[in-house]
Amino acid sequence: MIPESTPESVYWRYTEIQRSIYDWTLFIMPESINTEEHVIATYLIETKPEVDILNWAFSISIEQTTGTWVPVPEETPEVRQKYAGKIIGIYEIPHYEFELPAGLKSRSYVINIAFPWVNFGAQIPMLLSTVIGNISMMGRLKLLDLHFPHSFVQGFKGPKFGIAGIRKLLDIPERPLLNNMIKPCTGFPPEVGAKLFYEVAAGGGDIIKDDELLADPSFCPLEKRVKMYMEAERRAYEEKGERTLYTVNITDSANKVLDNAKRAIDAGANALMLNYLTAGISTLQALAEDPEINVPILAHLDFAGVLYESPFSGVSSTLVLGKLPRLAGADIVVYPNPHGKFPFLRDRYLQIALTLRAPFYEMRTVFPMPGGGVHQGAVPLLVKELGTDCIIGAGGAIHGHPTGPKAGARSFRQAIDAVMAGIPLEQAAQEHPELQSAVQTWGIAGSNVST
Amino acid sequence: MIPESTPESVYWRYTEIQRSIYDWTLFIMPESINTEEHVIATYLIETKPEVDILNWAFSISIEQTTGTWVPVPEETPEVRQKYAGKIIGIYEIPHYEFELPAGLKSRSYVINIAFPWVNFGAQIPMLLSTVIGNISMMGRLKLLDLHFPHSFVQGFKGPKFGIAGIRKLLDIPERPLLNNMIKPCTGFPPEVGAKLFYEVAAGGGDIIKDDELLADPSFCPLEKRVKMYMEAERRAYEEKGERTLYTVNITDSANKVLDNAKRAIDAGANALMLNYLTAGISTLQALAEDPEINVPILAHLDFAGVLYESPFSGVSSTLVLGKLPRLAGADIVVYPNPHGKFPFLRDRYLQIALTLRAPFYEMRTVFPMPGGGVHQGAVPLLVKELGTDCIIGAGGAIHGHPTGPKAGARSFRQAIDAVMAGIPLEQAAQEHPELQSAVQTWGIAGSNVST
Repeated sequence: MIPESTPESVYWRYTEIQRSIYDWTLFIMPESINTEEHVIATYLIETKPEVDILNWAFSISIEQTTGTWVPVPEETPEVRQKYAGKIIGIYEIPHYEFELPAGLKSRSYVINIAFPWVNFGAQIPMLLSTVIGNISMMGRLKLLDLHFPHSFVQGFKGPKFGIAGIRKLLDIPERPLLNNMIKPCTGFPPEVGAKLFYEVAAGGGDIIKDDELLADPSFCPLEKRVKMYMEAERRAYEEKGERTLYTVNITDSANKVLDNAKRAIDAGANALMLNYLTAGISTLQALAEDPEINVPILAHLDFAGVLYESPFSGVSSTLVLGKLPRLAGADIVVYPNPHGKFPFLRDRYLQIALTLRAPFYEMRTVFPMPGGGVHQGAVPLLVKELGTDCIIGAGGAIHGHPTGPKAGARSFRQAIDAVMAGIPLEQAAQEHPELQSAVQTWGIAGSNVST
Repeated sequence: MIPESTPESVYWRYTEIQRSIYDWTLFIMPESINTEEHVIATYLIETKPEVDILNWAFSISIEQTTGTWVPVPEETPEVRQKYAGKIIGIYEIPHYEFELPAGLKSRSYVINIAFPWVNFGAQIPMLLSTVIGNISMMGRLKLLDLHFPHSFVQGFKGPKFGIAGIRKLLDIPERPLLNNMIKPCTGFPPEVGAKLFYEVAAGGGDIIKDDELLADPSFCPLEKRVKMYMEAERRAYEEKGERTLYTVNITDSANKVLDNAKRAIDAGANALMLNYLTAGISTLQALAEDPEINVPILAHLDFAGVLYESPFSGVSSTLVLGKLPRLAGADIVVYPNPHGKFPFLRDRYLQIALTLRAPFYEMRTVFPMPGGGVHQGAVPLLVKELGTDCIIGAGGAIHGHPTGPKAGARSFRQAIDAVMAGIPLEQAAQEHPELQSAVQTWGIAGSNVST
């Protein structure tokens, strides 16, 4: 019996097709996707010029859902129609139409595939296994974006505090916040850290974080450190009348993170920090969604470059440092400042801020915290680019300030106040010796940036 | 007074922003678009490496909606929030993250912008003016795709007949149809055309079309031609027992097309043809949606290359030859066959077939009709690639068949029957002298194609 050939009426088995080599039922228009039932993945794919891209896209959508390299008996038309990935867009870049340039070595495509999320449910590990699991080893293929339906996102609680919650905790309605990383990074006892903590907090640090390299080592154990730092926080509060959040690094094996978090909170911690990419994004989620965790969580970026740095492979920085940690419940995400010590494209830095702060269903907005080589003279540029809903992540420019960490923190606050009042930094520096000293040491950023 | 800085709560005027140079309210996540209220346009954009792409995307979205190169007083925050284009995706290709290669001369992006369709309504001219109007002159910018909401598409009637309707008219439930273009193209009186028409119809042509170069010239006037051709159709029907559609070319100035169509129908025409890109896509729509037009319409591709051929500029062939004529109501779209006389990428040819036939709300499916150098030996390859829901557009291989047009048409039908029966063409040719002759003259296509 000859099957009907209209795509609406019939399912064509790829390898059984007598009439066409394509299973046209899996290539559909974006208009025909039930958007609530699918997560849409956007890929960059590069192939040799002779590769049939329809066939290639088909292989990906099937490989990551119902099929494998050879047909199997139970992969029925019905199974495929319901559970297979659907290809909803193939765009060649450049968009050649009638010929390929002579000597062309490769062809590039942006491809959109819709995956039925009933296959993996509202969880991050199986989501990643579906959209960038086995196919991550298919060579030149990079996951650029994921577009989540409302029903999927409703399976996640997201940030408990977010921008508004942290602003409320600290009673800072509008200005950018000042974060400090204790420096040196590791190798010191709690007493030394507490002394530095006090200096920075008293100087005006809003948030003080552990370095990502210090969690619970024998020479600086977590509970003792939390107690001593929080005691320093109280002393600084009495002096300046402002609270400081201490984000304790609780990074550990997945089965210990929650216990570490509770020990830290029991010891008085008012915030937490997790190296969420080495611990696992779903570990961050488990932490953020635990009802006993009632403090904000700072998500630290280390390991991110392993995932995003290739222009042709891996996962985009916008997902790694933006959408995924937001989904998993980070309240703050630390990420590279493009004007400092990390090489990072300014566009990506802006796109990550956008992804953390733009409306995303009911999900709270997340504080972007650019860090790495940020100094006092970079504050106007940073606010010019990101606006005021950001956290300034400063390490060396506080602890290495010519007159010490207290002056280092104070000079940042002076820079922030100047920007908020619309006063040029040069002018504010004339009135504030701490800021003057910082600006003389590190200059003012942005004069060579096209903003 | 200092405005709130969260994107959710405040509208930032681009040129009035004190804190950030970006109007972050216009950069949003695709999840936050009310999809029913927006048409989403996908662009390929190439810029110099130093261009700030956020700024560039912003310029496009504003230029094509509420703004211009300078702020104007009545472009209030409310006007912009409601009527401005929203940037919902920016993907760099390749997706550089931390550095640009040394010596890079340009950067490429795929950008998605959502346009509120209340701005232009359910019509094609204002849609095109919005999505690819003034910005078509912005250099390296190509419109790749448009994603239409259901509510927008409901403003269009689409094809009256489509694949199912034409199959019903001709009583051909499954096999590919055979179309013939009368050759020579122009320069002959109706009597000559009628003779050729009869030959092809009697030989098995399902549809016979005028050439795009012949509409209503003095030497072959429309009404006289229709009458003579339809008389030939009746003679052929009596002989073979199959009907033939004659798609009369009614191309003319916009104000005359409908009149030409009615004259043709009054003279007995059972189908129409329009050079829809020279006449205007909305002229096709006006024709297709007219309640008095009760016959199928064939949309002819000439002029399309002007719009789509650049890899960096213009409008993709998928839109020009696929989605737009489907929206406008074409029942058949003629487009280039990549294995014949037009240079055309095989991928685009497949993508156009997909766009004409895949589910698209309630819109009927449209017959893809690849043409240009199609011969009898190309039928197996064509069906292998497109399946059976296509029309084989044959000109020279019918009229130039060694034993005349009747044998030319008959040999195509023999090739179609062989493919439908799963018989190799070589074998069928041994049984049918007309096919044998064609295959000996033009060969069998596809042995050098990777299918």
